[in-house]
Amino acid sequence: MTSSRTPLASLSDDDLAAFLTEQQQAYAQLQATGLKLDLTRGKPSSAQLDLSDELLKLPTTTKDRAGTDVRNYGGLEGLQELREIFAELLGVEPAQVVAGGNSSLTMMHTVLVDFLLFGGVDSPRPWSQEETVRFVCPVPGYDRHFALLEELGIEMVNVDMRDDGPDMDAVEALVRDDPSVKGIWIVPTYANPNGAVVSQEVAARLASMPTAAPDFTIFWDNAYAFHHLTEDETKSADIISLCTAGGHPNRPVVFASTSKVTYAGAGVAVLAASVDNVAWFLRHLGKASIGPDKVNHLRHVEFFRSAEGLRQHMQKHREILAPKFAAVDEALRTGLAGLDIAEWSHPRGGYFVNLDVLDGTASRVVQLAKEAGIALTPAGSSFPYGRDPRDRNIRLAPTMPVLDDVRTAMAGVATCVALAAAERLISERRAGR
Amino acid sequence: MTSSRTPLASLSDDDLAAFLTEQQQAYAQLQATGLKLDLTRGKPSSAQLDLSDELLKLPTTTKDRAGTDVRNYGGLEGLQELREIFAELLGVEPAQVVAGGNSSLTMMHTVLVDFLLFGGVDSPRPWSQEETVRFVCPVPGYDRHFALLEELGIEMVNVDMRDDGPDMDAVEALVRDDPSVKGIWIVPTYANPNGAVVSQEVAARLASMPTAAPDFTIFWDNAYAFHHLTEDETKSADIISLCTAGGHPNRPVVFASTSKVTYAGAGVAVLAASVDNVAWFLRHLGKASIGPDKVNHLRHVEFFRSAEGLRQHMQKHREILAPKFAAVDEALRTGLAGLDIAEWSHPRGGYFVNLDVLDGTASRVVQLAKEAGIALTPAGSSFPYGRDPRDRNIRLAPTMPVLDDVRTAMAGVATCVALAAAERLISERRAGR
Repeated sequence: MTSSRTPLASLSDDDLAAFLTEQQQAYAQLQATGLKLDLTRGKPSSAQLDLSDELLKLPTTTKDRAGTDVRNYGGLEGLQELREIFAELLGVEPAQVVAGGNSSLTMMHTVLVDFLLFGGVDSPRPWSQEETVRFVCPVPGYDRHFALLEELGIEMVNVDMRDDGPDMDAVEALVRDDPSVKGIWIVPTYANPNGAVVSQEVAARLASMPTAAPDFTIFWDNAYAFHHLTEDETKSADIISLCTAGGHPNRPVVFASTSKVTYAGAGVAVLAASVDNVAWFLRHLGKASIGPDKVNHLRHVEFFRSAEGLRQHMQKHREILAPKFAAVDEALRTGLAGLDIAEWSHPRGGYFVNLDVLDGTASRVVQLAKEAGIALTPAGSSFPYGRDPRDRNIRLAPTMPVLDDVRTAMAGVATCVALAAAERLISERRAGR
Repeated sequence: MTSSRTPLASLSDDDLAAFLTEQQQAYAQLQATGLKLDLTRGKPSSAQLDLSDELLKLPTTTKDRAGTDVRNYGGLEGLQELREIFAELLGVEPAQVVAGGNSSLTMMHTVLVDFLLFGGVDSPRPWSQEETVRFVCPVPGYDRHFALLEELGIEMVNVDMRDDGPDMDAVEALVRDDPSVKGIWIVPTYANPNGAVVSQEVAARLASMPTAAPDFTIFWDNAYAFHHLTEDETKSADIISLCTAGGHPNRPVVFASTSKVTYAGAGVAVLAASVDNVAWFLRHLGKASIGPDKVNHLRHVEFFRSAEGLRQHMQKHREILAPKFAAVDEALRTGLAGLDIAEWSHPRGGYFVNLDVLDGTASRVVQLAKEAGIALTPAGSSFPYGRDPRDRNIRLAPTMPVLDDVRTAMAGVATCVALAAAERLISERRAGR
């Protein structure tokens, strides 16, 4: 596709103009094929959902192990058997796990609202009574995390998300003296979107760092804890034990779900935390609910059978997903390697590839792709308020389309990246004259 | 059981003493039988839950009518087919219905929190920025409604719940001049606990009454809309049309669910309101959820097939429940008729019998019952803050135990009511000397 492997910025004006023409022709061809492909959201594909269709015939009984009828009201904390499976998976005690509805995002929202209206276990007062509440937001990050905070009037302060987690020097400086900094979002394993895995060292610093706010809270969204793309099944840092050891037992609240394990819309979400945090959460939840859907809990318990059953199930997802991620990498290498206009992540798990293009061209790439029938997540969406200060970040979500469509779409994306970069460089040279 | 049909208060001192002795003996006998019965909560029985066990094999497909995969994310407003069924049942358009998770209580909580944090469509500001927020609470009423308000710091003002709904003169006087009065709870059909059905006239007054608060909201919890105990299937007043006609389209928010239609813990809840209210609700919900459990929605659609299918299903519940309510009435008549120490409701639907005993004896009755192995809802629980000013109200929930147990328990309750009344009258006479 690309005729040159010289860094684009090093080309002579004539060669750059020729490159632009080449990309314009490739783009015209792309538009002519009339694509309609969608790489916007991290949704599982039909083939992945099919892996769990046994759920449609479960549960085979309506009593839990203790003999309680799961069809009736009650059991606010969730089915004990399911809590045990997730306790093992998350390395905590069952009493530290609450199994809820179909959405961990909803549980995050609930925890935030509880902090706002009532304050947490270690809060001097409800957050709504504070002048300002700020959160540290590693970027790029998950757009829905940021949208939640924006809706609730919580200010966001960016820090860089690196390969081993957030820039801890920056985080520690932010939380040390400012009591209005109340929390941080962390996607510890195969982060959305850059695929980073929080290292033991970073986790230990998060757990032990001094914070001016006594109720500083780590929202540890372990959405991709079991979602390995390689045989190297990374183990998430045990943030709850680390925080307890650091003298801050109530600092972390851990979230996970089966949304990308069984059915995206009909799975089970869980929360894990200190026993005190769990009691606090349930005390407030008990006003708003008489209990979760325990039939769906039992359905999942019968389906997984055990923590090991869930782990084995994830290998089937890997078989479907790994080729798609390889196709993304292949297309980007074919189209862009050596041009020095893009960098992308090589995630070992999770749902996304992080693509950083030439500064100032991400919006243009997304627009070009759209006009060629390839829907990408809006540029900037991995940043608070949708504002990427360098306009270079694009989140690629290759899980939903079939493999051939991923290949086609990503070849097109590479063309858009190269075209936008050439346009930009030429316009910069002209402006510089 | 009772030897006299003379009103207890008219008995001579000697006869009253003899009556007390008789009741004490009956109570001793009751204690000796070693009962363990529970009439505390409005839970369906196993036999009722069995009626919906076809759900365990549903859905038979994973696509909705439009061809969308229900297993995946999305569809915040709920499955269209389910919204259509509830639109017909509630007499609104499908666009006015949101189908959610397993709990209408959770939807009520969400709406209240949205009012607090953001304000509603007609709110001048978020309720959390008001000095005081008050709700009108018809009493006796549903304890979880009151607990929600208490948790959220909303003050409660009692008005009497009558046979045709709340005392409207009192309601109108409260809302007319005080802008801090922001809402009212209404269980319009077979109210919890007194079984009242809000009349067309009362509903029309609620819909058209002038309120000082522009965002005064009727929380219309139609939990028992389809839960008839007789062939006379009362139709709920159409509060949404009435409010629209009265110039207050955003005044009502209607809640309903299948918790007491299919599975108590694994049913589907719905909210219905004006299109503007629905848009407001979904805008905020969209931050906290990517969509409800549409597999469970489709499961219910396949099970009911239509609104008429749901109505027919409710007749099977009636066959199980009607004899239990008849047994409650029979036991209370046998034990208490003519003594002039108790009044009870004769509900034509719903889940409760409201028992008013001699003033000042409800707590004692509940204590006596407990010590005889019969668990009743704590006295006062149908009032805000758990305070029944006359200590006379007891909510009976006869749905969960099997018929024979209802008979046994209610005969015991009648003994406790008579014993407590005799104790009270004797102690009053002594104090009067």
